Amino acid sequence: MAESWSFLDTVECNFRPLVVIELAKGTKEETIKWFTKRIVDKKANGGAQLLIKPLVTENGDENIYLVGASHLRLLLGAETVGLVKECNDNSMRTFTYSSRKTFKDFEDDNHDFLTMAECQYIIKHELENLRAKDEKMIPGYPQAKLYPGKSIVRRLLTSGILVQIFPLHDREELKKLRHSWYGRVKVGYQPLDDIRCYFGETIALYFGFLEYFTFALIPMAIIGIPYYVFAWEDYDKYVMFATFNLLWSTVILEVWKRICAILTYRWGTLLMKRQFEEPRSGFHGVLGINPVTGREEPVYSSLKRQLRIYLVSLPFVCLCLYFSLYVMMIYFDLEQWALDYHRENESNFSSLMLYVPSIIYAVVIEIMNRIYRYAAEFLTSWENHRLESSYQNHLILKVLVFNFLNCFASLFYIAFVLFDMKLLRQSLATLLITSQILNQFAESLLPYWLQKRHNKRMKKRMCSQKTDTDLSLAEQVNMEKEMGTYLGTFDDYLELFLQFGYVSLFSCVYPLAAVFAVLNNVTEIYSDALKMCRVYKRPFAEPTANIGVWQLAFETMSVISVVTNCILIGMSPQVDAIFPDSKMDLVLTVALVEHLLLAIKFIMAFVIPDKPRDIQIKLAKLEFESLEALKQQ
Amino acid sequence: MAESWSFLDTVECNFRPLVVIELAKGTKEETIKWFTKRIVDKKANGGAQLLIKPLVTENGDENIYLVGASHLRLLLGAETVGLVKECNDNSMRTFTYSSRKTFKDFEDDNHDFLTMAECQYIIKHELENLRAKDEKMIPGYPQAKLYPGKSIVRRLLTSGILVQIFPLHDREELKKLRHSWYGRVKVGYQPLDDIRCYFGETIALYFGFLEYFTFALIPMAIIGIPYYVFAWEDYDKYVMFATFNLLWSTVILEVWKRICAILTYRWGTLLMKRQFEEPRSGFHGVLGINPVTGREEPVYSSLKRQLRIYLVSLPFVCLCLYFSLYVMMIYFDLEQWALDYHRENESNFSSLMLYVPSIIYAVVIEIMNRIYRYAAEFLTSWENHRLESSYQNHLILKVLVFNFLNCFASLFYIAFVLFDMKLLRQSLATLLITSQILNQFAESLLPYWLQKRHNKRMKKRMCSQKTDTDLSLAEQVNMEKEMGTYLGTFDDYLELFLQFGYVSLFSCVYPLAAVFAVLNNVTEIYSDALKMCRVYKRPFAEPTANIGVWQLAFETMSVISVVTNCILIGMSPQVDAIFPDSKMDLVLTVALVEHLLLAIKFIMAFVIPDKPRDIQIKLAKLEFESLEALKQQ
Repeated sequence: MAESWSFLDTVECNFRPLVVIELAKGTKEETIKWFTKRIVDKKANGGAQLLIKPLVTENGDENIYLVGASHLRLLLGAETVGLVKECNDNSMRTFTYSSRKTFKDFEDDNHDFLTMAECQYIIKHELENLRAKDEKMIPGYPQAKLYPGKSIVRRLLTSGILVQIFPLHDREELKKLRHSWYGRVKVGYQPLDDIRCYFGETIALYFGFLEYFTFALIPMAIIGIPYYVFAWEDYDKYVMFATFNLLWSTVILEVWKRICAILTYRWGTLLMKRQFEEPRSGFHGVLGINPVTGREEPVYSSLKRQLRIYLVSLPFVCLCLYFSLYVMMIYFDLEQWALDYHRENESNFSSLMLYVPSIIYAVVIEIMNRIYRYAAEFLTSWENHRLESSYQNHLILKVLVFNFLNCFASLFYIAFVLFDMKLLRQSLATLLITSQILNQFAESLLPYWLQKRHNKRMKKRMCSQKTDTDLSLAEQVNMEKEMGTYLGTFDDYLELFLQFGYVSLFSCVYPLAAVFAVLNNVTEIYSDALKMCRVYKRPFAEPTANIGVWQLAFETMSVISVVTNCILIGMSPQVDAIFPDSKMDLVLTVALVEHLLLAIKFIMAFVIPDKPRDIQIKLAKLEFESLEALKQQ
Repeated sequence: MAESWSFLDTVECNFRPLVVIELAKGTKEETIKWFTKRIVDKKANGGAQLLIKPLVTENGDENIYLVGASHLRLLLGAETVGLVKECNDNSMRTFTYSSRKTFKDFEDDNHDFLTMAECQYIIKHELENLRAKDEKMIPGYPQAKLYPGKSIVRRLLTSGILVQIFPLHDREELKKLRHSWYGRVKVGYQPLDDIRCYFGETIALYFGFLEYFTFALIPMAIIGIPYYVFAWEDYDKYVMFATFNLLWSTVILEVWKRICAILTYRWGTLLMKRQFEEPRSGFHGVLGINPVTGREEPVYSSLKRQLRIYLVSLPFVCLCLYFSLYVMMIYFDLEQWALDYHRENESNFSSLMLYVPSIIYAVVIEIMNRIYRYAAEFLTSWENHRLESSYQNHLILKVLVFNFLNCFASLFYIAFVLFDMKLLRQSLATLLITSQILNQFAESLLPYWLQKRHNKRMKKRMCSQKTDTDLSLAEQVNMEKEMGTYLGTFDDYLELFLQFGYVSLFSCVYPLAAVFAVLNNVTEIYSDALKMCRVYKRPFAEPTANIGVWQLAFETMSVISVVTNCILIGMSPQVDAIFPDSKMDLVLTVALVEHLLLAIKFIMAFVIPDKPRDIQIKLAKLEFESLEALKQQ
């Protein structure tokens, strides 16, 4: 390895821009000089050994830089980040430079061996791992303190000197991807492998899940349609539908784990070793010794964090949940009041008044959601998590619980307090359909339209009427840097999660929900694809082996749905009629069935293996080989 | 490493017997010669490079052999099996011969660096890994087929040529251990580290769990005593006791995971890499290629195994469960009949008759248990599992379900069908106490007495009146080879599992159960210790990092106990009195509380980390170091 690094010094390479760095306007010369020197400096001197070039724009600003790297540098970087690639014998192995010849499609002059997304990920990783040596502060900015081992890029970002780092789009590739993804009207699978090559594993896995989930809903939708067409109201039919639903939802979540393993094995991320996680940029504390690495870095007591979580965040979340319930009760009171008013003075005005409470409630919910989201972000940030992953998990949990309550509390109230199945069905339909339409609009079409208008204005200003593909690099960078930043898959998963709730929680009351969900998801795939390709900046690829906390969230939802469906069926007059003498027997039977279903669910989840047999064998083979290799040593 | 192996050839070493091999009487000379040659042969020639010596007994039989190994050979073996030892800097690391100087207490002439149990484990591992090369059969026994890569020892065992392999006791060490373990009457912890050194991790972990579990039951016992003393019958008090019980049982199972991590980290097994598992000796199939290793070995279709499990074993188990329930119903009929008979003709004979059904039922249950155990072993063996671990898991599951039903079905029937709380309390007490007394007797005292009698007879025959410690080696081997074989911790855990059931399932009816459990476990520790030290052959040490499937079994029991306790409390007349108007409200409240408790249970299990923070940090540190080492390469 040492040879290859020194070999790197002597090679001249042609520059291909991969990542854009935007500094704040008016950044001091001294700082820029220091930063760029660190980027190009040799590894041995603590640099990143990358290539950097300023982007010359027409107005002569020099605050945008393009970062690239030689082919050899990228291969060495691939080894550092632990990329897993396919070998000539079709097995997946961690890439090392010394064993490069054994990898499929590897040739010294084949620059497509690493995908562009992988190259950009490597550059991002190398930039973030650029660490302060003896610097006590960022040159030129004495207030931006540094300590040995602190990531320079993170400090530059938090102190505002670095505005953003983003990977460049590849216009050619993007065009091809767009064409195969949503360019032509066709029925078929998404090009997941191409999406993964272009956007990385996290995003490809989201689209994979979206597609899988849509297919998985189709049986439910098909079974649901006759209920609507023939207006079936027999509860034995509803019972069958609900039972099918419950077992089906367990099966699809278990099968997803297997499909996820197949996908991520093919993409190499299933085998990728978890890298050691550095503190997230917002983390602060007194300088101390990290017990794991032995390096000097800010340390924050875990006890203090626990206290903050359990004594502040938890009560706050509970308070918010209580408040949300309180608002819901006011809404029901208002609704009742409007109804009474309408009954007393039947007029056009009064019938209009009937809609007012719903509208007010919808607006208030939206406002509460927004405020809560800010509060949750503030609180989670204040909890001062050391790792980005732990920050994300705590944030997701907070937002999830609140959104769940906001979306479903009124439905629960209607179902289990008012016992009004007609109203439940009606509210469910209204909520599901309006939320789907609003989401699609707010999430993709609106930003797309805004973006398009903005682009047109930009182009007009630049007085050029070229098409997308033959834009100059400077124009491309300028256009892309103004695009919105994709904030991750959180909101997309949340939408699916709530949809899953609408479909499964009250499935025996409204079998048509699955049909709407399928229809929505088909268009969702297109609008999300549009969003990724045209609305947002290209995001950095993020290797991942599963959908993380969302798997747990979906599984929890499916457990809750067993309980709700059993209660709903138990409450139906048809089932009531089976037990004419004793309500007791009814309740006991329902409770028994519920416990049986839950037991079956857990047994099924236990029995179905999380990974398909051939993946298990492949993993066992790798493990066996590494054990044998250790013995041979 | 290559150097050290060749170095091994030239070294002469003094022989210390560690493991005994007993061949069948009249084994052919040719076979013995071949087998011993393979054992002493060099590694390079496919041998085990161990030392072997025939044991000359007075009657001149030559069917017993003693196996040992040089100190260097054992160190190299420790590396092969992947032993984890403490380093000079107090961290735990996988032992390698080249880094031996960095380990604590390592000196080239310190033969205590490896414990005797570890040495015996290494020898067992090396013997079992003695594989056939070109031999098509065992020389002298054409019917005992071999194929390249088949473990010779396993084939010798299945064909009956090899009677047994067992490790020798160390009389000195055993005496010390016995003294510190149960030799003096004292209140204190067991010497778990010494037990682990002598018997290995699996057995030490069982005793650790037994001790922990006893301590964990003490709070429940203490709270339970006043219920008995003051004859509290208020149900609000029972509710409090049950609630405490439910949360407590969750906490203790979670905390055990943490304690288990602390123990196994200290013992090194937490970090020990799982070795590749060879097929178990009973496994058969057509010769094929193992997809994992690429070696030739018997292959058996996984689909066929699944079919056998789901189409034969599962229905059979269900049938047995049904039969067991049927027998229980007959018992209740008999009981009723005896009661009626007693009422009609009140006489001495009739009051004696009252006991007959219980006695018959107890005997029948015992017989059913035995028959079922054989059937379960036969079926699981017929399912033809490739791995011993998978065989064990399937066997444990089968036996567990049946034992659970046999023990608790009658109690469930009394509680939830007859609604007779008095009878429930009485049956619970009778079952718990008699089973405890019988167990202690059948499991330790009886074998101990038999063993003692046998030893006396042996000694008399040898006409020597020496004490244990100054027996000659030949006498020691002859005595130990006749001792019973310890069949693993299965029955011991099963006993604890059923006890946990008695304590937790109906805890709100009979709070005194915990007291009896504690009393039993205190003596159980002593009788089990006696059993290990004096009754059975020394077992081979088995490294393990946790109590495996038993953790799951105990957790499932604690989930079931939430349900039973909630129902019991709901059925009590006192709680009934709180809802005088509506039975409905009562049932709904009970169901709500039950779901809340279950939710709290799962959240608690999720929130409490499985490993204490300092173990987490130590593990992270090791992972970080290995990542750094990879980068340095």
